[in-house]
Amino acid sequence: MTFIEQLSRHWQNGTQVCLGLDPYPERFPARFADDPDRILHFNQAIIDATADLVCCFKPQFAHFAAEAAEAQLQATIAYIKEKHPEVPVILDAKRGDIGSTASMYAREAFEHYQADAVTVNPYMGSDTVMPFADHADKGVILLCRTSNPSAAEFQNLLLEGEPLYIHVARRAQQHWNRHGNICLVVGATAPEEMARIRAVAPDLPFLVPGIGAQGGDLEGTVRNGATSPGRGLMINSSRSILYASQGEDFAEAARQETLRLKTAINDLA
Amino acid sequence: MTFIEQLSRHWQNGTQVCLGLDPYPERFPARFADDPDRILHFNQAIIDATADLVCCFKPQFAHFAAEAAEAQLQATIAYIKEKHPEVPVILDAKRGDIGSTASMYAREAFEHYQADAVTVNPYMGSDTVMPFADHADKGVILLCRTSNPSAAEFQNLLLEGEPLYIHVARRAQQHWNRHGNICLVVGATAPEEMARIRAVAPDLPFLVPGIGAQGGDLEGTVRNGATSPGRGLMINSSRSILYASQGEDFAEAARQETLRLKTAINDLA
Repeated sequence: MTFIEQLSRHWQNGTQVCLGLDPYPERFPARFADDPDRILHFNQAIIDATADLVCCFKPQFAHFAAEAAEAQLQATIAYIKEKHPEVPVILDAKRGDIGSTASMYAREAFEHYQADAVTVNPYMGSDTVMPFADHADKGVILLCRTSNPSAAEFQNLLLEGEPLYIHVARRAQQHWNRHGNICLVVGATAPEEMARIRAVAPDLPFLVPGIGAQGGDLEGTVRNGATSPGRGLMINSSRSILYASQGEDFAEAARQETLRLKTAINDLA
Repeated sequence: MTFIEQLSRHWQNGTQVCLGLDPYPERFPARFADDPDRILHFNQAIIDATADLVCCFKPQFAHFAAEAAEAQLQATIAYIKEKHPEVPVILDAKRGDIGSTASMYAREAFEHYQADAVTVNPYMGSDTVMPFADHADKGVILLCRTSNPSAAEFQNLLLEGEPLYIHVARRAQQHWNRHGNICLVVGATAPEEMARIRAVAPDLPFLVPGIGAQGGDLEGTVRNGATSPGRGLMINSSRSILYASQGEDFAEAARQETLRLKTAINDLA
């Protein structure tokens, strides 16, 4: 099954929750303190507690790279593939290079790490996107309108009345989606922008960051981002799930928080 | 010394050549065929043959990541630090994330890999740039007008009357350069754009890809990109130096090709 087919099956089963794996070892429960593989072991506990509730897992590359824990990233994804092969994995690495170098980043994500999808920065255009998108069974998730406070500095600049993020969305829909594997990052902090993007990209899945600490609008996301009820979205939550408890009940607390978000999304659909 | 001070000293000594370390093991001389650390050993030979001729080395992260050779990347940079500490190292990773995640990529580049500068994608704005730029002694090299064929798809869109790359350059000059450590990527394939960028960013160093296989304009680069004669540029060459010969004379051939480029640049100044 392709990334998009896997995702679609999870939507059908009633979940649009993307669980972001952003390991902060200093926020792990005490039992991991002396464990040299604590990132992997923490992730495994979270994954087992939530795999039946999510449409995808999204490890954040930077959190592993900063700890020189690339081997634990690889092992985390291998664990998902072994124990929960129905849940696709997005490598959130925001790669962006061109030509043969972009092809090497695609190899890194899809072969070395065995990810099913990767986040990509479109600033350099088709030369960046197509070496990833030519892997037809993999998902390519392009930054479009991000959730951060300074997103508007460039993304909302206007050309002939249309902001840059609309140009990105239109090119994604019309030129880059020949294999049906392009998705867009659209932040929950920008629900009006999300409606405009949905109008020009009617069926591209959206990866939605910004729920939780960033104060994103869950109701506006579901209203403006869905392609049809219960479909079209990967609504990400990371820290509010991972660190719902720092006690011994952390995995069960993560499960409850995931379930709460899943239900909140479905109640809005 | 800061990255910019090191760079400036090399300009004073008459070189604006940036040597890109893009290892393609299949293009290495035969003697490396059975060497498990061939990327490192090839790099060491190239580095020793060229260190007195260049203003910086620029390892390309993707080439190491695709081979799962992060340890050889780290060892390559450590080798430069040990043997040629006067030559700064740019980690060409084109990182782009926000806030605490951007800070983790800064840790990856500056602490784990010991790079002196890193390339960064500005699509998400200040939230991406400042966590890198707050490392005042390190260089932060922002994609502005890149050298690839599809660069113009977004970078040349006329947003509010000016192309996107000008918005990036102006914000870099006016808002992000408070520590004097911002540089811009400006391709040699776009000499007219380079002149416009130099007009709004009069003293930011330019990292210039696109000489060589991409057909960039060396004369236009020196004419339009220099801040004063012999200063302001890091003109990158990678494959035409690294693979000048695939025989046993590869290191000497790389030296001759580096010298040729250094001289060609200086003859134009």
